[in-house]
Amino acid sequence: MAVQIIKTKQEAAQLLLAHDNIVILCHNFPDGDTLGSGFALCRALRSRGKRARVDCSDLIPAKYSYMIEDMESQEFEPDFIVCVDVADARLLGKIGEQYGNKIDFCIDHHMSNTKFSKKLLLEERAATAEIIYEVILAMGVAITPKIAECIYTGITTDTGCFRYSNTTASTHMIAAALMETGINASNINRLMFEIKSRARFELERAALDSVEYYFGGKCAVIYITRAMIDQSGAAEGDLEGIAPLTRQIEGVQIGVTLREKLDGTYKASFRTDEEYDASKMCAELGGGGHARAAGCSPKGSREEARDHILAVIKNNLKD
Amino acid sequence: MAVQIIKTKQEAAQLLLAHDNIVILCHNFPDGDTLGSGFALCRALRSRGKRARVDCSDLIPAKYSYMIEDMESQEFEPDFIVCVDVADARLLGKIGEQYGNKIDFCIDHHMSNTKFSKKLLLEERAATAEIIYEVILAMGVAITPKIAECIYTGITTDTGCFRYSNTTASTHMIAAALMETGINASNINRLMFEIKSRARFELERAALDSVEYYFGGKCAVIYITRAMIDQSGAAEGDLEGIAPLTRQIEGVQIGVTLREKLDGTYKASFRTDEEYDASKMCAELGGGGHARAAGCSPKGSREEARDHILAVIKNNLKD
Repeated sequence: MAVQIIKTKQEAAQLLLAHDNIVILCHNFPDGDTLGSGFALCRALRSRGKRARVDCSDLIPAKYSYMIEDMESQEFEPDFIVCVDVADARLLGKIGEQYGNKIDFCIDHHMSNTKFSKKLLLEERAATAEIIYEVILAMGVAITPKIAECIYTGITTDTGCFRYSNTTASTHMIAAALMETGINASNINRLMFEIKSRARFELERAALDSVEYYFGGKCAVIYITRAMIDQSGAAEGDLEGIAPLTRQIEGVQIGVTLREKLDGTYKASFRTDEEYDASKMCAELGGGGHARAAGCSPKGSREEARDHILAVIKNNLKD
Repeated sequence: MAVQIIKTKQEAAQLLLAHDNIVILCHNFPDGDTLGSGFALCRALRSRGKRARVDCSDLIPAKYSYMIEDMESQEFEPDFIVCVDVADARLLGKIGEQYGNKIDFCIDHHMSNTKFSKKLLLEERAATAEIIYEVILAMGVAITPKIAECIYTGITTDTGCFRYSNTTASTHMIAAALMETGINASNINRLMFEIKSRARFELERAALDSVEYYFGGKCAVIYITRAMIDQSGAAEGDLEGIAPLTRQIEGVQIGVTLREKLDGTYKASFRTDEEYDASKMCAELGGGGHARAAGCSPKGSREEARDHILAVIKNNLKD
């Protein structure tokens, strides 16, 4: 059955307001945009007298709790099922079993959306939360500070705090309107982007201390050993996002992070600029991934793994 | 002689347009806001047929060169001298000898401005560039993409890419208008925030290695010594933006960066959260600045400077 394309925010608002018991689904491993979109829409629907709740397969990370903590839970039998920021039914995770083929409406900004819902509002915007903002206005709902916090969270997380190239004039216009409600945006940004656990800070420091440069500075290698992890007290969650640090160094086109696994072998993460194909190099090392970010698990000790990797990089070097 | 307060952008525009040979002065160790403000204003004045140039005591760091590279130099005897983003005549550096007591007009956003100019337009805005934007509009000048790049640079650098609490709805409104001119804002943000020279990377690494925690982790102190600067090969421009790193550590409410000056004494930069007033603490230490970001120059050696600072922090500590 072909998906029905919803073309305007007015149409979307009417569709939502025609129902009374609405379940809003977020994608699995939820991020700021799916949660911000979901809770903003949920609050708006409740303010129009609807019963509404947000469902997600996975636990909501604690750093997003400010969006939710004042909300009452509502149990009811839904008569309308909406997805927000979900590009494919598989991304619903385990709640997909319950709802997967019964999605009435999807609001999304991924142009790769697989049109799995009965109706679809799809726009190429920086964040789904931008679309939700306009749908809420079309519903005749005033933007409260709590709704504004949710929308802002979606926008700021999906744009890297207005940094990425998906940011448009409209992104900033919406942010301006949200700020007018008096929200503490800097606090949201601090929670989303700045705060590092002290363990993470210490681990990052140790990792950066291990940097080695090769091929005239075109390549940088950093290490995360079990000893560093143990000494810093870092948890698994503290290990995310260290690999991109190698690419921040001027002149480095290939950044490699070698992280020691529990068995003493290493997992390598490659980050490259436009000139080098990380997935090609990692494929030569038995791994794979994307053009700018890929990984592999070279055999042997730290030195063996590094030398193996450097040999492959050397073969792929330009100029 | 009392300073004459300029109250409106229209008044400021008329004042500028009443002259034909205008020198615009930036503060020493120039940052994105003073340079973006200066070059935006310079371009706007030239487009109105004026002769205008920007002067600064220190070299302009290479990362800002996109603001300047297409501009012709203009030599002339000035009939009007304007400062942008300069809170005190001493911050002019060595060009202060030439111009210090002849400043006709100052446009600034530092509420600590010492009113050293004959006329002053002072507003508490996120960046001086926000004020300059409105002055340029009041001059009847259309915002070209080049002017937009300069203004955007001032705003994004002074707000940490819209992250800090100085960001307002008006900041985002102006950013939206600048984006409408078609500028590549994500590229500016990459230059300003992501790419680090290798020297800067090495310096940051050494500085983070020096971290000390006080008062149960509420305060973090890092050091940038001349030895670190020399060993890393860092230039003045590489020293910018290190102070905010202290505030990234979970639980740290007061971050202090102590940077050694050429004479062996230290300059302290405070970064605080909403609970602590950096400018108040720095005022107690003979300095000043903003509520969340301020500075001072405590006397003595590294240990003396630190102990003096810690004593003031201790007196201001809450709970």
